[in-house]
Amino acid sequence: MAYNLLKGKKGLIFGALNEMSIAWKVAERAHEEGAEFVLTNTALAARMGSTEELARVTNSLFIPADATSVPDLENLVEKTMEHFGGKIDFILHAIGMSPNVRKKFPYDNLDYNNFLKTLDISALSFHKILQVAKKYDAINEWGSVVALSYIAAQRTLFEYNDMAEAKAALESIARSFGYIYGREKHIRINTVSQSPTLTTAGKGVKGIDALIDFTERMSPLGNATALECANYCITLFSDLTRKVTMQNLFNDGGFSSMGMSFRAMEMYNKSLDCNECHKDLNDEIKEK
Amino acid sequence: MAYNLLKGKKGLIFGALNEMSIAWKVAERAHEEGAEFVLTNTALAARMGSTEELARVTNSLFIPADATSVPDLENLVEKTMEHFGGKIDFILHAIGMSPNVRKKFPYDNLDYNNFLKTLDISALSFHKILQVAKKYDAINEWGSVVALSYIAAQRTLFEYNDMAEAKAALESIARSFGYIYGREKHIRINTVSQSPTLTTAGKGVKGIDALIDFTERMSPLGNATALECANYCITLFSDLTRKVTMQNLFNDGGFSSMGMSFRAMEMYNKSLDCNECHKDLNDEIKEK
Amino acid sequence: MAYNLLKGKKGLIFGALNEMSIAWKVAERAHEEGAEFVLTNTALAARMGSTEELARVTNSLFIPADATSVPDLENLVEKTMEHFGGKIDFILHAIGMSPNVRKKFPYDNLDYNNFLKTLDISALSFHKILQVAKKYDAINEWGSVVALSYIAAQRTLFEYNDMAEAKAALESIARSFGYIYGREKHIRINTVSQSPTLTTAGKGVKGIDALIDFTERMSPLGNATALECANYCITLFSDLTRKVTMQNLFNDGGFSSMGMSFRAMEMYNKSLDCNECHKDLNDEIKEK
Amino acid sequence: MAYNLLKGKKGLIFGALNEMSIAWKVAERAHEEGAEFVLTNTALAARMGSTEELARVTNSLFIPADATSVPDLENLVEKTMEHFGGKIDFILHAIGMSPNVRKKFPYDNLDYNNFLKTLDISALSFHKILQVAKKYDAINEWGSVVALSYIAAQRTLFEYNDMAEAKAALESIARSFGYIYGREKHIRINTVSQSPTLTTAGKGVKGIDALIDFTERMSPLGNATALECANYCITLFSDLTRKVTMQNLFNDGGFSSMGMSFRAMEMYNKSLDCNECHKDLNDEIKEK
Repeated sequence: MAYNLLKGKKGLIFGALNEMSIAWKVAERAHEEGAEFVLTNTALAARMGSTEELARVTNSLFIPADATSVPDLENLVEKTMEHFGGKIDFILHAIGMSPNVRKKFPYDNLDYNNFLKTLDISALSFHKILQVAKKYDAINEWGSVVALSYIAAQRTLFEYNDMAEAKAALESIARSFGYIYGREKHIRINTVSQSPTLTTAGKGVKGIDALIDFTERMSPLGNATALECANYCITLFSDLTRKVTMQNLFNDGGFSSMGMSFRAMEMYNKSLDCNECHKDLNDEIKEK
Repeated sequence: MAYNLLKGKKGLIFGALNEMSIAWKVAERAHEEGAEFVLTNTALAARMGSTEELARVTNSLFIPADATSVPDLENLVEKTMEHFGGKIDFILHAIGMSPNVRKKFPYDNLDYNNFLKTLDISALSFHKILQVAKKYDAINEWGSVVALSYIAAQRTLFEYNDMAEAKAALESIARSFGYIYGREKHIRINTVSQSPTLTTAGKGVKGIDALIDFTERMSPLGNATALECANYCITLFSDLTRKVTMQNLFNDGGFSSMGMSFRAMEMYNKSLDCNECHKDLNDEIKEK
Repeated sequence: MAYNLLKGKKGLIFGALNEMSIAWKVAERAHEEGAEFVLTNTALAARMGSTEELARVTNSLFIPADATSVPDLENLVEKTMEHFGGKIDFILHAIGMSPNVRKKFPYDNLDYNNFLKTLDISALSFHKILQVAKKYDAINEWGSVVALSYIAAQRTLFEYNDMAEAKAALESIARSFGYIYGREKHIRINTVSQSPTLTTAGKGVKGIDALIDFTERMSPLGNATALECANYCITLFSDLTRKVTMQNLFNDGGFSSMGMSFRAMEMYNKSLDCNECHKDLNDEIKEK
Repeated sequence: MAYNLLKGKKGLIFGALNEMSIAWKVAERAHEEGAEFVLTNTALAARMGSTEELARVTNSLFIPADATSVPDLENLVEKTMEHFGGKIDFILHAIGMSPNVRKKFPYDNLDYNNFLKTLDISALSFHKILQVAKKYDAINEWGSVVALSYIAAQRTLFEYNDMAEAKAALESIARSFGYIYGREKHIRINTVSQSPTLTTAGKGVKGIDALIDFTERMSPLGNATALECANYCITLFSDLTRKVTMQNLFNDGGFSSMGMSFRAMEMYNKSLDCNECHKDLNDEIKEK
């Protein structure tokens, strides 16, 4: 499945760590669709993961950058424009990390330096990228920017912790900067709110397996995979979605619009029955 | 607990059937808070329920009316204004019924006459009440109108059927008429989106017990009771909420803002474990 | 710009009247993208418009049908399946009409037969199409259905009248049926909420020119055109958006996420100044 | 108008600077409704404003505290509990400030230390208050917490700058902490999203006068005043709203549910006519 949807387009992709990453799939799909791009990640992440391998496979350039560092981003944007001999057409932001989650500070015992770091890494980095790009006038008219988000920005999920606030701020930045970059350069900015996905980042979230089982049963189409997310991003980078901006777009098999599904309720009911059946079986055992 | 919050206010309350009805609780609480009101329901419902008893207890007038019939509503509003010798200050709309649900037409095999009846009874009746009230200039400036809704207007719940569309239309009418009645007479119109409640109406919905268990565990404060809903309505009828209009207000213990709670997940997980334990126990039985 | 995004796909397109219609543009673009489709409209609309001409140009079949008539829809679906020798992959619903708007009944003086007709034509027709399609098992797995909506479903616009309730119900049907068709056949159902567009239908709305000027200035990217809407629909019919369902997707240049733009405010301010300047100029005239 | 709605309740009110402050009105109304409370603000704000005067008039204690400082908040909560000899029942958070707005950094040229300060002052302060209160077990079961927000959390308004992200994060904190404090202590947490209000804080926002004219004409009931906001907060602190939690509640005369009003459009149209009339008048002048 390849349509040349991004033929001739240049991009910049943040956050591809390994083949489980959504950003990795976006890179692969963008490559198939005819785009050229620069991959970036922190130097540390690059060493831990296999971003450079991805760069080889997709015939792209890897430039390390810490997305919270404005000088790093300036260097990145400069080199990217040099590399392409001009402007880019799309950016993917797939960056999120909470030191509070990592270090197991619960939500009612947060460390506030960590909280500010969560916001800086997971939300302000998006603003920094856009501000630097705008200063360098790095994005072509009618370019497209996407950041990955999660429904925790709207609804509380236990254990998601201060990432909820980070995603809420991220989506707000998409709107606020989408207004300015839109009116001045016709550049659109959206977030894609993706099903819970078993990436390296997702694995950090406690109880994510059970959650994924639940959302799978709640979503009429099941959870969206990383590849399906990548396909959706491709349409948002293409010229076919030019007037879609400042939106948070759910790619979640319908989860966000469900109150309760039959399948999830049936599973849930089992647990109500379970105590009963458990008791009956135990009685049977005793009798024997 | 009584504060004279509605002292001197006159009202009109639709939908009090029996003591499980939310409208019943609203009537009781409005009475305690110093309001006078007219109760109304269809003649049939009045016979089946005990609306007239409620009228005696709260020292109020019962006037039968079919809320889908404009002539009935005209008679109701005329008589109400006669009774009070003037205008009223608040209206409660607590009316909803789906012949498709009653007659067990599933959502992909709806009868369309029934669908139109669902909309007429559960949504258009609200418009008719407002249109008739406005023609008779029956509501005082800064009056307040509330209709009861449900989260199915935003999110799909299996078995809620075409009542979802009725509630979506109902909430839309609150906005559309809230605009017109607001700018012309400063009258505010809101909907309260209540937890699933075991009223006579609620009982018609299949699987409501399991749903109520689930929403109870998902909601940090638990489900809201009919009395708690009534208390909330009292604040909306009072003079303390004069600039709140065209809103859908959740009274649901937090359910609408939850993605997943620990308690619901724990219960859900049990069912994942259940197959396992069940299997183990069965093995044990076989061994014996 | 053509990518073969819909190569091999078959569709059914409701509501193409003339070249101003969004559905017309969707048909043209779907044709360019390699789809085959059946066009349909009421026999009357077909005579008034030029749907049959479009059928010739896009090499497609025109089958007249009244979308409020289940027998008509059954005939349509049967003939469509016969024509293609099998199932279809996508449906576009672009149908809306309010007799209350046409006959100039204001929102606080609605005719209720008209109101039910508005709902039947503009919302229930969507349910009927889906119900008939499901009975005939007419849509392939992972097929895609789109209906056109408008922001009046969420926010009140003066003069939009009872179409607000119709669009609210329409979006609700997309969710409710999206759940059932999703879990059973993996078919996704979404609505696209489009900028105000000067179609023949749009022209009926009073004051639409000024509204379009306002939304143009409020939207960072300006209003979306019919062609841009068509392009967006193409992505939703393609295989790249398979897990997007039960969503209302704004294609509006950012309008829905704006509170106030500089350009709209500047224009608005002019009117505040206007009285002043008007007065000054009049004074100048008098002096002379 | 006083109902003893808060009789016997103790509270803590942040952000009362002078009689234009919403928090000031909340304090006055809470006093009238029978509550006792502690007032707090930074020492600097207290000197600049007249918080201590308010303390005298309402017979309450003033304790200075910087809401971004955890030790200050710990001291505040300790002293407050000492003062009352026990727990409190309600908290108002009315704190917001953006150094980027103050120092006129536009949104595409933000200073990132300022951005983090905006978030710390306007959003994290709310989390800190809640976390400290929870550690000291300072709030009675079924207590109520309200923070003031603004529609910029959902929709972009030019010049509102990074306060948009702060309000988005603030509302997210209300949800996230509302879940935890709800399930553990039955304490509810909501935000009230108020009309633009000419407080000392509001005055900092450029072009706020024209914005207020626009929102006044867009809102069917007109903008909500500070007093009307205070009245709404009183209902949320009372025992009549016990199951309302994790909500963002608009107190805005209907603005948030409006797409376009007749009055705002009429005003807007004037400016379209203005160029015309201006031209005509100028022609008239030239002729003379």
